[in-house]
Amino acid sequence: MATLIRNQFLLSSPTAERLYYDFAQNCPIIDYHCHIDPKDIAENISYNNLTELWLSGDHYKWRLMRSAGIDEKYITGDADDYEKFYAWVQVIEGAVGNPLYHWTALELLRYFDIKEPLTTDNAEQVWQTTSAMLTSGNMRARDLITKSNVELLCTTDDPVDDLSYHQMIADDLSFTPIVLPAFRPDRALDIQKKDFPEYIQKLSEVSGTKISGFSDLLSALHSRLDLFSERGCKLSDHGMENFVFVPASEEETDRVLRLRLMDSDTVLSYEEEAIYRSALLIALSKEYAERGWAMQIHFGCRRDNNAMALRNLGINTGFDTIAGGNFVAPLANYMSYLTEMHALPRMILYSLNPNDDALIDTLIGCFQDGTIPMKVQHGAAWWFNDHQEGIRRHLKSLASQSYLPGFLGMLTDSRCLLSYTRHEYFRRILCDYLGSLVESGEYPKDMERLGAITRNICYHNARELFFPS
Amino acid sequence: MATLIRNQFLLSSPTAERLYYDFAQNCPIIDYHCHIDPKDIAENISYNNLTELWLSGDHYKWRLMRSAGIDEKYITGDADDYEKFYAWVQVIEGAVGNPLYHWTALELLRYFDIKEPLTTDNAEQVWQTTSAMLTSGNMRARDLITKSNVELLCTTDDPVDDLSYHQMIADDLSFTPIVLPAFRPDRALDIQKKDFPEYIQKLSEVSGTKISGFSDLLSALHSRLDLFSERGCKLSDHGMENFVFVPASEEETDRVLRLRLMDSDTVLSYEEEAIYRSALLIALSKEYAERGWAMQIHFGCRRDNNAMALRNLGINTGFDTIAGGNFVAPLANYMSYLTEMHALPRMILYSLNPNDDALIDTLIGCFQDGTIPMKVQHGAAWWFNDHQEGIRRHLKSLASQSYLPGFLGMLTDSRCLLSYTRHEYFRRILCDYLGSLVESGEYPKDMERLGAITRNICYHNARELFFPS
Amino acid sequence: MATLIRNQFLLSSPTAERLYYDFAQNCPIIDYHCHIDPKDIAENISYNNLTELWLSGDHYKWRLMRSAGIDEKYITGDADDYEKFYAWVQVIEGAVGNPLYHWTALELLRYFDIKEPLTTDNAEQVWQTTSAMLTSGNMRARDLITKSNVELLCTTDDPVDDLSYHQMIADDLSFTPIVLPAFRPDRALDIQKKDFPEYIQKLSEVSGTKISGFSDLLSALHSRLDLFSERGCKLSDHGMENFVFVPASEEETDRVLRLRLMDSDTVLSYEEEAIYRSALLIALSKEYAERGWAMQIHFGCRRDNNAMALRNLGINTGFDTIAGGNFVAPLANYMSYLTEMHALPRMILYSLNPNDDALIDTLIGCFQDGTIPMKVQHGAAWWFNDHQEGIRRHLKSLASQSYLPGFLGMLTDSRCLLSYTRHEYFRRILCDYLGSLVESGEYPKDMERLGAITRNICYHNARELFFPS
Repeated sequence: MATLIRNQFLLSSPTAERLYYDFAQNCPIIDYHCHIDPKDIAENISYNNLTELWLSGDHYKWRLMRSAGIDEKYITGDADDYEKFYAWVQVIEGAVGNPLYHWTALELLRYFDIKEPLTTDNAEQVWQTTSAMLTSGNMRARDLITKSNVELLCTTDDPVDDLSYHQMIADDLSFTPIVLPAFRPDRALDIQKKDFPEYIQKLSEVSGTKISGFSDLLSALHSRLDLFSERGCKLSDHGMENFVFVPASEEETDRVLRLRLMDSDTVLSYEEEAIYRSALLIALSKEYAERGWAMQIHFGCRRDNNAMALRNLGINTGFDTIAGGNFVAPLANYMSYLTEMHALPRMILYSLNPNDDALIDTLIGCFQDGTIPMKVQHGAAWWFNDHQEGIRRHLKSLASQSYLPGFLGMLTDSRCLLSYTRHEYFRRILCDYLGSLVESGEYPKDMERLGAITRNICYHNARELFFPS
Repeated sequence: MATLIRNQFLLSSPTAERLYYDFAQNCPIIDYHCHIDPKDIAENISYNNLTELWLSGDHYKWRLMRSAGIDEKYITGDADDYEKFYAWVQVIEGAVGNPLYHWTALELLRYFDIKEPLTTDNAEQVWQTTSAMLTSGNMRARDLITKSNVELLCTTDDPVDDLSYHQMIADDLSFTPIVLPAFRPDRALDIQKKDFPEYIQKLSEVSGTKISGFSDLLSALHSRLDLFSERGCKLSDHGMENFVFVPASEEETDRVLRLRLMDSDTVLSYEEEAIYRSALLIALSKEYAERGWAMQIHFGCRRDNNAMALRNLGINTGFDTIAGGNFVAPLANYMSYLTEMHALPRMILYSLNPNDDALIDTLIGCFQDGTIPMKVQHGAAWWFNDHQEGIRRHLKSLASQSYLPGFLGMLTDSRCLLSYTRHEYFRRILCDYLGSLVESGEYPKDMERLGAITRNICYHNARELFFPS
Repeated sequence: MATLIRNQFLLSSPTAERLYYDFAQNCPIIDYHCHIDPKDIAENISYNNLTELWLSGDHYKWRLMRSAGIDEKYITGDADDYEKFYAWVQVIEGAVGNPLYHWTALELLRYFDIKEPLTTDNAEQVWQTTSAMLTSGNMRARDLITKSNVELLCTTDDPVDDLSYHQMIADDLSFTPIVLPAFRPDRALDIQKKDFPEYIQKLSEVSGTKISGFSDLLSALHSRLDLFSERGCKLSDHGMENFVFVPASEEETDRVLRLRLMDSDTVLSYEEEAIYRSALLIALSKEYAERGWAMQIHFGCRRDNNAMALRNLGINTGFDTIAGGNFVAPLANYMSYLTEMHALPRMILYSLNPNDDALIDTLIGCFQDGTIPMKVQHGAAWWFNDHQEGIRRHLKSLASQSYLPGFLGMLTDSRCLLSYTRHEYFRRILCDYLGSLVESGEYPKDMERLGAITRNICYHNARELFFPS
């Protein structure tokens, strides 16, 4: 069977091809948001086979397998590695129109030089080839990163993390890609969760700060922010189902926190929870602004919808969905509040709901302050939107409502080191979009300018987050 | 004027054409959801002219006529049949971009061999030709079904229906298409409606069960479910504006029902109504799961928006609109609840709101249990979405988020026996979509696999609902 | 560099080209909604340079400049005119995919015969050429209107306006385009706003009516409606964030208004505000219906999101966003209410939220009464949707759900007299859409009918608002 990923893959015009090959292809990767475990990089782990790389933690694939009628035994169960791989092949070979089909093909091509589409016919041969390569000793974690042309990557880390793996990585000068932590204090914000008091206890310990009230909490977090700063952190990240914003006095906030910490059975009202979250978000945003960090907010995801699956398999196992609420008023009020305090950090907004594209693109326009291009960003098409349609729609809407050359570009958001091919996927679509505007006569064939725009979106704009010019 | 429906109609590539003609075109039709009156089939009624077939009950057409400025006299009024037909022709000839334009052309071509577009110029000739054919004796209801290559069709029936027409049809062995009832207990769920007590009285009578409380109601419905099962029923259907889910105790539910039945003037609170609906939906879902039925839920429709039109013309006359609420949390909670009880039936979710596509496609992914492909389905583009854009958008979103080869495919949802051409419409669009992925190099030109996927979506997946392999 | 706006610009097929050049291009413009200041026309003002025309009040451009990182000094600050122009050029030359890129090119071509795209390379030359032309004496306000082939335009006027400029324009018989006022009583409806009592005082003065209660208010407005009628007004316009509808008794409404007027510190409840707004909307709608006016409703905009910018720069400076609420139930109830009273005027609904397209297109179908085509209209893609994608999406959705030949077509909604090129933009996209349906075999190549449809949408349907046939 013929190669799927031809040179023209997703590039439907000569201009698109030129943009991709002359400008995009060789840009290093700045992966400013992913879920790679820094331990894997620090220890430079190796993999025995594709099941370990592909199927041990990738809930995108698990979901698709369940949808295709595969028994859980072959997904997260006790089937052996080859059985799981083969089950995956049975699914992916027919998954027409699904981004995983392309990601699979790109990963086999770029890391294993396998050109044919993966099918049950060649499954065994692919297994053997890839297993041999993976165990050869030169496809360990760091090899994959280097091979992917990654210049810098940011993991996602909890404030209580000691960042020792980041220190180990930084200390090894033989490994040139830069690996930085990103600050994700969701557990400090999720005051309604069962394990919140336990988390605050842990935060208290690692920071050496007794936490009784809100000012103690801020002190504790402050010391963790300092640690993250020392390790080169430049971004924070926040995940939430819906954005809420109810500003209140510090006394009121303090009262809510004390109430929650006093008795672990306390159930806060919706408003109390919102007051606490708002106050902590404001305080953190000020810190981010002062430190020159960017603040990411991921919203619109309703997690763990299947209670039985949550009990059996835990979180992040493929049971999340788009939430669909209205974020405009609270988020606008929050950003206006920060602007008034001269404390609006660079922001990157992501919604899981594709219907939010235009709403985000117009909202960010209300808070651009003219200091840098696109101070407030609409982050790249996220998760359930990270497919051709989603990426194209995001680009078109952003270009229509905003200033595309300032777009921060792609990230992987991934748990797997083969996912760097998503940058190739994105870049091809970006070049195809720009090329289509030239071909249809909507933008001049000024390859120098278009090439610069391409390189800025693929590389320079994200690099500016870390090394401002 | 040239034929509109050429061989390549909607098929923009050679691969699309091959898929359609080699695999899709000849698949029998499994019309698992329509609004055909079983009486028409049992009595094998005949039609005098196109007005009877097209304009006596099709509120899609009525709406378009009103939009085009046609007086009600020529729509539901006392104009004669030809006048109404002619008024329709005046509208449809200019209805560029409207699906009714294509449906009209397809119906004239497939049932009457009329190739030219319908215009005021040929209206009289079309009228004469079609009237002659319709009254010739071989274009009666059953002829139209047979000619349409229908293997099986499901009507939509109320639990109080005695299904005698279904029995009559089944008893006549000379008619080979299978006609089954589908169970639609909306009136049993619509506790807030004026005629609810009257309906419960009727249900009581036909089931021979005195209904005082909730357990009586379940007994009565149980006996009707048994009757539907005996007649071969395999699907239920539920229509609602917004999905609500407030689980409560059986005592609480019983209290609400008794309150409503005790005094016909009772106005229940919003929460009481939700409690009753939730409890009955749970009880019914369990029954469906046990019986191996699929459960359809149609939501997102706000009906009868024009009070004057409702008073003058009644329901289902063209005054419905998209509701636009948020269904994610209640529907997810409901499905999780059923999953916990091991009582989640096969489900088919339809929303009238096109913005819900991605939300449904990700929600169903949370409840696929690996027993069969796509146990929970996103139903085909419904009603106001049943047009080219809507069908393409639905397919693309489903393919991106889910496993397209497991999709249940098309239904007619129609009140007219000529509407089977909607399957041709759908199939052409499906083949065009799959073909476009091959042409653009996004899926290999593996005609065997693509052909199988096409036939599964057009026929086999739906057939499995009735004859599981 | 080559011309951007070639003959085929946005016209991707021969049929599209023929439709545009044979039918659309030469239609006069009926600009039934814009924000041109009638004073500018009455006084026939002249402009010194492009900065005055383009950058003195156009918040679309200001937003894009802020997004691109331009300092406020060069936007609304004290930079000189050329500096501001040059800053704009720096932004627009790279604004690939943004509608402002095309509007800029169209305006330079049509009014200044400048064919090359505007870049920093030719900025100075463009500045000199355009400044010379603008100050030559034959590019004053009225020249621009005449040159644009405008047959009629409607400004947007407050009920308290004395319309003296309209009188001046009408009195000058040498200027043939018709300039009419449109009635926009937002300030009379915005009862919650701080300056409401002051506004009522002003309304009282200009109408010579003491306003103590609701019936006084109606009398005052009635006299203003009469004045607008005398000046040829045929449309009203209403802007609101979300549509609310809570009908109440006249006593209740009167009580709310008196409460508000009695003490300027009164804060009304959300419901009281809704009661007042609903009652006034009902009363006004009846007037519009009786006078044969069309009623425009613009909703879905959340204004002035950035409090600091509002304080520093004022309203309409580029800090608005899409609101994203649900309008279906209240708007449907309102329209049903008016229908019951036989007081539904022609309506034109605009939402800023692109997700509302299908919802509006199905809602209007519930209130078409068959008296004229498309009595209730979905207005052209508005503001943040006024770009290629938005216009195409609007047309496709409208065509799918409704009767496209009855569509009212384009308006400018603009504050600048060069914006008439937006009609060319719209017309090209319309013709491209219609042409594409012919090319793909979805509509017959009946150029006479398609030409008539094109001319109706570009001109005749809007003209009917003013000169009913």
